[in-house]
Amino acid sequence: MKIITLTTDFGTKDWFVGAVKGVILGIEPQVTVVDISHEIGDGNIQAGAFALAASCRFFPRHSIHMAVVDPGVGSARAGLAVQTEDYVFVGPDNGVLSLALTREKIKVIRRLENERYFLKSVSRTFHGRDIFAPVAAHLCQGVSPLELGSAQEDYVKLDWPQTRQEGDYIAGGIVYVDRFGNALTNIDGVLLSGCLKLESAILVNGKPLCSLKSHYQAVPLGQPVGVIGSTGFLEIAVNGGSAAEALGLKINDPVAVRAGSKTC
Amino acid sequence: MKIITLTTDFGTKDWFVGAVKGVILGIEPQVTVVDISHEIGDGNIQAGAFALAASCRFFPRHSIHMAVVDPGVGSARAGLAVQTEDYVFVGPDNGVLSLALTREKIKVIRRLENERYFLKSVSRTFHGRDIFAPVAAHLCQGVSPLELGSAQEDYVKLDWPQTRQEGDYIAGGIVYVDRFGNALTNIDGVLLSGCLKLESAILVNGKPLCSLKSHYQAVPLGQPVGVIGSTGFLEIAVNGGSAAEALGLKINDPVAVRAGSKTC
Amino acid sequence: MKIITLTTDFGTKDWFVGAVKGVILGIEPQVTVVDISHEIGDGNIQAGAFALAASCRFFPRHSIHMAVVDPGVGSARAGLAVQTEDYVFVGPDNGVLSLALTREKIKVIRRLENERYFLKSVSRTFHGRDIFAPVAAHLCQGVSPLELGSAQEDYVKLDWPQTRQEGDYIAGGIVYVDRFGNALTNIDGVLLSGCLKLESAILVNGKPLCSLKSHYQAVPLGQPVGVIGSTGFLEIAVNGGSAAEALGLKINDPVAVRAGSKTC
Repeated sequence: MKIITLTTDFGTKDWFVGAVKGVILGIEPQVTVVDISHEIGDGNIQAGAFALAASCRFFPRHSIHMAVVDPGVGSARAGLAVQTEDYVFVGPDNGVLSLALTREKIKVIRRLENERYFLKSVSRTFHGRDIFAPVAAHLCQGVSPLELGSAQEDYVKLDWPQTRQEGDYIAGGIVYVDRFGNALTNIDGVLLSGCLKLESAILVNGKPLCSLKSHYQAVPLGQPVGVIGSTGFLEIAVNGGSAAEALGLKINDPVAVRAGSKTC
Repeated sequence: MKIITLTTDFGTKDWFVGAVKGVILGIEPQVTVVDISHEIGDGNIQAGAFALAASCRFFPRHSIHMAVVDPGVGSARAGLAVQTEDYVFVGPDNGVLSLALTREKIKVIRRLENERYFLKSVSRTFHGRDIFAPVAAHLCQGVSPLELGSAQEDYVKLDWPQTRQEGDYIAGGIVYVDRFGNALTNIDGVLLSGCLKLESAILVNGKPLCSLKSHYQAVPLGQPVGVIGSTGFLEIAVNGGSAAEALGLKINDPVAVRAGSKTC
Repeated sequence: MKIITLTTDFGTKDWFVGAVKGVILGIEPQVTVVDISHEIGDGNIQAGAFALAASCRFFPRHSIHMAVVDPGVGSARAGLAVQTEDYVFVGPDNGVLSLALTREKIKVIRRLENERYFLKSVSRTFHGRDIFAPVAAHLCQGVSPLELGSAQEDYVKLDWPQTRQEGDYIAGGIVYVDRFGNALTNIDGVLLSGCLKLESAILVNGKPLCSLKSHYQAVPLGQPVGVIGSTGFLEIAVNGGSAAEALGLKINDPVAVRAGSKTC
């Protein structure tokens, strides 16, 4: 089975995603193309990075994940193909791949330089269609990442709110607001499961807001609550409402959870 | 051919639908996944039920229809797989499957209990990804519904406006407003074809509003009209406009059509 | 490989697109259906025509392009299948196919008349599902366009702003506004590449607005600029903003570019 996933800010109103799929199918007819999202906010690299990281591991091994949120298209930023133990990631080297890559075992990082794997005519503004799509399709066909260009040691990381221990607290920040208005943080419920105790106090912007509960409905309607959401990260929600709206939560707002002990 | 259709309120902005498809493809790589809608209003079980009922019979036999509009996720409501003569339906037992099922010949109803067919880790908030998607994929692979859990006699029905004969009138209600603002009723044009006559008077909220015509353009622009729409149900439209907006029509508003005779 | 592309104004909120795909898969299970857009403005034939023309050539040969923006559904307008050297186009004969067809070498034009290739029951309002989808699927299965109905000499063209030479200027008009607010014109950068020189003056509504540059960022943030966009056509953009909003640009606004010489 051959799978290419797409995470972009292209929107669905215009023909952009259709053209990308046409290019892919013209090179690799047997592929199944799956949309993760095309409604990442315009140029919002953080949101694209989070959407990719939150979904990529639900796909079978050898899937190719293409993510294009690329406000710098046409500038000097490189395009990358990153082969990991389980997947190949393709996209601009601007951080959009970086959150997903922190959880993967990286094998190869190559710059996209070999024009043989691009469309013949490359526009200045639509590298999703002209570079990333054909490269992803050729990778899917079996072209080795080593063919694509020169090696690169590392990749651009996001200026992400740091997760860290501060005294009794584990501190991080809001990194994504989903369509329900839930504010997702980068505080990982799995890694911190030894520390995060039900009923722990949660502070947002330095002020106590709510407690950690097992599920949204553990608080009355309209009340704020912290839960370990389906992504595995701590999220701030309002039972039956939008936390982002009701509480004015925004990306990068600092969040802290009182940990069970100082040595978790 | 293996087909799974998806009807949900997950939206398309986030990665939710992508993760569902990744799970399905990881279990059954040969499947074609078709989106019916992911923009069912949040938790609007009635709208999801109608969208599923309006489209499911256009798919080939043996398709698997997964519908997840599930405001009670994490509560005690059961998950069901319902095998009918032509299809398998998978979703929460909260009514979202019920309208489609009224037109099917039911063979087997089973509760989703066998965790062998779930993801290894089941979240509290995303059973679409963790339970319904893997179950649908396993069914698609040939797992029998009998493997999934214990038998159940019946399923939850919607509190739907009743269609009934009242004197000279056939009465029902508005059950769905589409994106054009057409108000779709549960008055079935096929079943009642002996009664519904062109030019019949149509009452909404007890007041005469318009007549039954063969097509929208049979009335002047901006005027209300009743037609038997492409779903086979009576709908109230405004030629060139939005009936819901222009007339203030809402879900559950009662509708009545004067029938041709008392004995249709 | 068998591909059918879909360009419609059906929206994605309701079940319309899902039903279309169900019909197609019921006839031709091996097809890959690709959405170009379902968010063409209601009945906006021009926008549908542009979206199709901007994307169709990125698909492999023998793809079938179905475009249904059809405000006259149920009226006397014909349905067409147009076989060209590379593709087959299917849709109403109202201009929605015409812009794409101007770039194709036409072989056969047939009216959709043979009901054998329609759904058994054809509604008045949803020919996308009942006529165009099954016809596209049958074509995909190998049915010849000659089977579909009587021959037709020509097809309906759009009342498109004319591209023409006027003294020192090449004149045309705005034909599409994309989701970023870029105003796309029908002035073809490829055909006119001998004339369009960087720094050429661009007039909109008869007044000088900006110059032709190689890329958006060649002007300061917030400033207007003309570029040959990824479709190959001249577009008017605002660096970092929406040209349509900032400059009040609208469909059919006349645009002119000062050409390099009178004899290009």
